[in-house]
Amino acid sequence: MIAGSILVGAAEDNVAEKFVATDPSTGQAIGPEFSSASVDHVERACALADAAFASFSETTLAARAAFLEAIADGIAGLGDDLIARAMAESGLPRARLEGERGRTIGQLRMFAAFVRVGDWLHATIDPAQPERVPLPRPDLRRRHVALGPVAVFGASNFPLAFSVAGGDTASAFAAGCPVVVKGHPAHPGTGELVARAIKAAVTSCGLPEGVFSYLPGPSNALGAALVADPRIKAVGFTGSRGGGLALMQIAAARGEPIPVYAEMSSINPVILFPAALRDRAESIAEGFAQSLTMGAGQFCTNPGLLIAVGGADLDRFAAAAGAALSAIAPATMLTPGIHASFESGVGALEQHGATQLVARGAEGPGLCAARGALFITDADGFRADAALGHEVFGSSAVIVRCRDVEDVAALIAGLEGQLTATLQLDAEDEPLAAKLLPLIERKVGRILANGWPTGVEVCHAMVHGGPFPATSDGRSTSVGTLAIERFLRPVSYQNLPEGLLPAALKPGNPWGIARRVDGALVAGD
Amino acid sequence: MIAGSILVGAAEDNVAEKFVATDPSTGQAIGPEFSSASVDHVERACALADAAFASFSETTLAARAAFLEAIADGIAGLGDDLIARAMAESGLPRARLEGERGRTIGQLRMFAAFVRVGDWLHATIDPAQPERVPLPRPDLRRRHVALGPVAVFGASNFPLAFSVAGGDTASAFAAGCPVVVKGHPAHPGTGELVARAIKAAVTSCGLPEGVFSYLPGPSNALGAALVADPRIKAVGFTGSRGGGLALMQIAAARGEPIPVYAEMSSINPVILFPAALRDRAESIAEGFAQSLTMGAGQFCTNPGLLIAVGGADLDRFAAAAGAALSAIAPATMLTPGIHASFESGVGALEQHGATQLVARGAEGPGLCAARGALFITDADGFRADAALGHEVFGSSAVIVRCRDVEDVAALIAGLEGQLTATLQLDAEDEPLAAKLLPLIERKVGRILANGWPTGVEVCHAMVHGGPFPATSDGRSTSVGTLAIERFLRPVSYQNLPEGLLPAALKPGNPWGIARRVDGALVAGD
Repeated sequence: MIAGSILVGAAEDNVAEKFVATDPSTGQAIGPEFSSASVDHVERACALADAAFASFSETTLAARAAFLEAIADGIAGLGDDLIARAMAESGLPRARLEGERGRTIGQLRMFAAFVRVGDWLHATIDPAQPERVPLPRPDLRRRHVALGPVAVFGASNFPLAFSVAGGDTASAFAAGCPVVVKGHPAHPGTGELVARAIKAAVTSCGLPEGVFSYLPGPSNALGAALVADPRIKAVGFTGSRGGGLALMQIAAARGEPIPVYAEMSSINPVILFPAALRDRAESIAEGFAQSLTMGAGQFCTNPGLLIAVGGADLDRFAAAAGAALSAIAPATMLTPGIHASFESGVGALEQHGATQLVARGAEGPGLCAARGALFITDADGFRADAALGHEVFGSSAVIVRCRDVEDVAALIAGLEGQLTATLQLDAEDEPLAAKLLPLIERKVGRILANGWPTGVEVCHAMVHGGPFPATSDGRSTSVGTLAIERFLRPVSYQNLPEGLLPAALKPGNPWGIARRVDGALVAGD
Repeated sequence: MIAGSILVGAAEDNVAEKFVATDPSTGQAIGPEFSSASVDHVERACALADAAFASFSETTLAARAAFLEAIADGIAGLGDDLIARAMAESGLPRARLEGERGRTIGQLRMFAAFVRVGDWLHATIDPAQPERVPLPRPDLRRRHVALGPVAVFGASNFPLAFSVAGGDTASAFAAGCPVVVKGHPAHPGTGELVARAIKAAVTSCGLPEGVFSYLPGPSNALGAALVADPRIKAVGFTGSRGGGLALMQIAAARGEPIPVYAEMSSINPVILFPAALRDRAESIAEGFAQSLTMGAGQFCTNPGLLIAVGGADLDRFAAAAGAALSAIAPATMLTPGIHASFESGVGALEQHGATQLVARGAEGPGLCAARGALFITDADGFRADAALGHEVFGSSAVIVRCRDVEDVAALIAGLEGQLTATLQLDAEDEPLAAKLLPLIERKVGRILANGWPTGVEVCHAMVHGGPFPATSDGRSTSVGTLAIERFLRPVSYQNLPEGLLPAALKPGNPWGIARRVDGALVAGD
C-alpha cells in the first residue's frame, strides 16, 4: 500500500504539505501525493527511537537476527509491486532493480547470520589476577554496544540497496541501533513500500515501535533537523559531496558532535599499464565502455578517470573506447535534476580548454536520457584545474595522458581520496604496479585488478569506503559486514558481579559466542 | 642527555626562542633552556613523516615489534636520570613515577607482542566463487593499514605514560604510523630524554628518520600548525576540554578533515547504592578519599561526583569522607597554572549558592600544594547549574543528594559523557543496579564495581574512553590494545595477482597470522 504517509513509529501521519514522485522518462507525476515530514515529525521519531534504544540494543542475538530476516521476508513479499514502482520512479530497468532487490534482501540476511555469530560484540575477557604484584589485576571484560539512534538518508541511485532498508539501515539495526530514515523524495512510493515492510517486522517481532520511523520529504531542513537532534548518535548518508559536507558541518557543530558516515564522491581512477594496453587495448576499452554506462553511469564506483602513459597504445584505447561508447544507447537518469547536472558537467568539459571530446554515446529519445561522454586531456592540463578531478555524476569519463610512469605516479599522488582504483595490468606490468601500489593504497578503499569497479560484492572482505572526500570517514565501509562497526562503541566492565554482566560476557558463555580470553581467541559453540 | 633541542627526524635543532622548565614545588626554573619549535619545524617534521610512511607502514611484524621493544629498552636504560628529572618537573613522587615508567615500558612491550600476533590486521579473505550464478564472485581480501602520520600531544599529568612515548605514540607506531610529538612544555627535560630514546631506536632499527620527530614548545600555534598540516592523518591528545575542542575544530576545518582522539574531561560519577551505603559508608568513604587525592587528584579518572539518595547513611558517608580528607596532606600539583585553576575551581564551589563545603584536606607547606575539597549539594541544585557538572581538575568532588532512586536515575540520565562510572553496591543492591545500568552504559566507557576508577589497567579488555565530552570520539580507547584501531583503516583487494598482494593476505599465509576465510576464523601458526 502506498498512502503517501509519514511513519512515526507505529503511527501514520498525513499532512497538508505534499510532494509528488515523477517518472523521469516522461516527466509525469506519479500518484499518490506524499506528505512532507516536518521538524515536528523529527521530534517525535527521535523521542520514540531514544525510548526504544535500551530495549532494542539488548535483544538476544536470535531476536535481532529474526528481525532482520523478517524485513527481508517482507521486502520479498512485496513482489512485483515494488519493482514496478521503483522502475517508474527511478527510470532504472527491471533487471537492474530485480538484482538490486536481491542484493538488498541478501544483505539483510547476511547481517542476520552475522549477528547470530556474535563476533561483532568483540567479547574480550581479561580475568582477574589476584596474586599479581605489585598490584592485583581486576577482572576486566569488554564488549561493543550500539551507539544509539541512527539517522539514515536514502540515496537516489540505489532506491533499494542504499535507501530505506539498504546497507546503512541493515547494519545499524544489526548493531542494535533504532533507525530514523529521511526518505529520498525521488522514490517516495518505493520508500514507503519498504518502510511499511520494516514497520510490519517491528510489530511482528514484538519490538518497541521507536525502532523505526520513516520521514519522507524534499526539504533540506528536514534532514538538517534530524542530524541536529541530540538523540541521534550517528548518521549514514550516500549522496552528493555538497550534501555530505553539509551534514558533516551540522554534526560537528552540535553540542555533542557525532560521527557522520557520508559516502560522497569518487571518480574511481583506472590505471592502464603499458603491457596490458599494448596487448589488449581494444578489449579493455570495450569493458570500460560497458562499466561507464552501466545504470546510466549512476554508480558511486563509476570509472570516471583513466590514467596511462601517452602513445600509440593509448590512442588505440581511446579510439576503441570512443567507438564502443558511440554505439551505446542513452539511458534514463534518475531525476530531471540529476540529468541536468550531468549535462551541465559534460558541457563544461566540452567547453574546457584543456580537454578534447573523444566521443559521446548514441543519440536516442526520452526525457532524462543521458548519452555517455569521454574526454581526453594531458597530465599537466588535468593538474592545472582541480575541477577536472571532480565527479560528474553519470557516464562521463576523462582519459589523462601522462608523459611517463613518473608522471603517472605524480598524478596518482595528487588525487583526492577515492572509493576504488582499478589496475588494468598484465604479468609484465607487475613490477611497475608494485611500485605504484603504496601510492594508490593511500588514496582508496578498494584496489581491483583486471575488472571494473561497478559491482560491489556484499561480503566480509569488501570495503566500500575510502579517504576523504570519497567518504567523510576513511576508517569505515558502508557495504559488507564490517559496516556494522560504524554503529558500535566499546564498553569495559570491571569487577562487575556476575548478575550484572551482559550475557555476552558472563561466565559460562551463555550465548556461545567466540570470546578473546587473555588475548587468545576461544571459539564459540 | 638534555640539550634543550628540537628533534626533527635525525636532525637536532636549537633556536633562539627558548622556554624553561619549572619545579612546581619551588617555582624555580630548572636548566637547561629549551628551544621552542616553530611552524618551520612542523613543516620539516611532517615532510619527513610523510616520506617515511610507505616504508614504516609496511615493515614486517617482527621489525615493528622490535622497534617498540627497542624504545622500551631505551627508556629503561635511562635509569634514575629519567625519574629524577620527571620528579623535578612534575612534582610527582618517586613511587608514582617509577610505577608510571613501568606502565609506559609495559605498554610498549604489550604492543610489540600484539603487533607480532597480527590480529590487528583483520586479515579477511572471501575466496572467488567462479561458479556462482547469476554472477561469479571475485576474490576479495581485506586488511587494515596505517592511516598515515599521526600528531601526538603529550599530556602534563602523566609525563611518561601519556606523553612522548605514551599510549598514543605506542599505538600509532604499532599501527605503522610515523609520529610527530608536540612536547608538553611542563616537562621538557623528561620529554627530551624519552624522545632521544625513541630517536635512538629509530636509528638502531634501521628505520627512516621521519618515523619520529619531537617538537617541544609552549605555544598553541605550534600545535595548531601540526594538526592543520595536510600530511597529518590523525591526532592523539590528552588534556583540557578547551584544548581538545580547539584541536577538533582545526581538524574539522581542514581541506581533508581528520580524526581527533582527544581525551578531555570527566568527573567519573560514583553511585553509592543504598545497602552498600548502609553497611559500609565509612570504608567506602576511606577508599574514596584515597582515590580522590591520589596523584594530587590529577587523574583523568578522578572520582569527582558522588550520587546517592539522601539520608542518614549518606550523612555518615559525607562525615567519614570529610574526616578522611581532612587528614590527607596536600600534594604538589603539576604546574602553577594547574594549581591556580584548581584553586579557582574550588573557590567557585565554595562561593556557589547551591553547594556546602564538607571538608578540605589538611594544610601544609609548598608552592602548588593542593588541599583536597569535598562539597555537597542536592540534585535540583546540581541540575540547575551545568557548571557543577564540569571537571575541576584536581582533588575536588561534589556529593549530590537525591530524593529517591528515580531522582538518581534522572540525574544519571542528565550527565554528560564520562570515562568511567563506579558502582558501590552490595548483593542486595543488584536489582536496582540492573535497572540503572542501561542509563549508565550510555554515558561511559568503563563501569566498575566496588573499586575506584583511578588506576587504569593496560590490557585487551580496557576501555579508557567514553562519549563526548569525556573524549572527542566515544568509539575509541586510548589505553589497551584496542587503542591501535584508532590509527587503522580497511583496504580491500579484488582479484589482485598474488605477487601484488600484501604478505598478510597472500596464499599460503606467509606471516602465519589468524585470518578470517569466508567468515570463519582460521588460526595462525
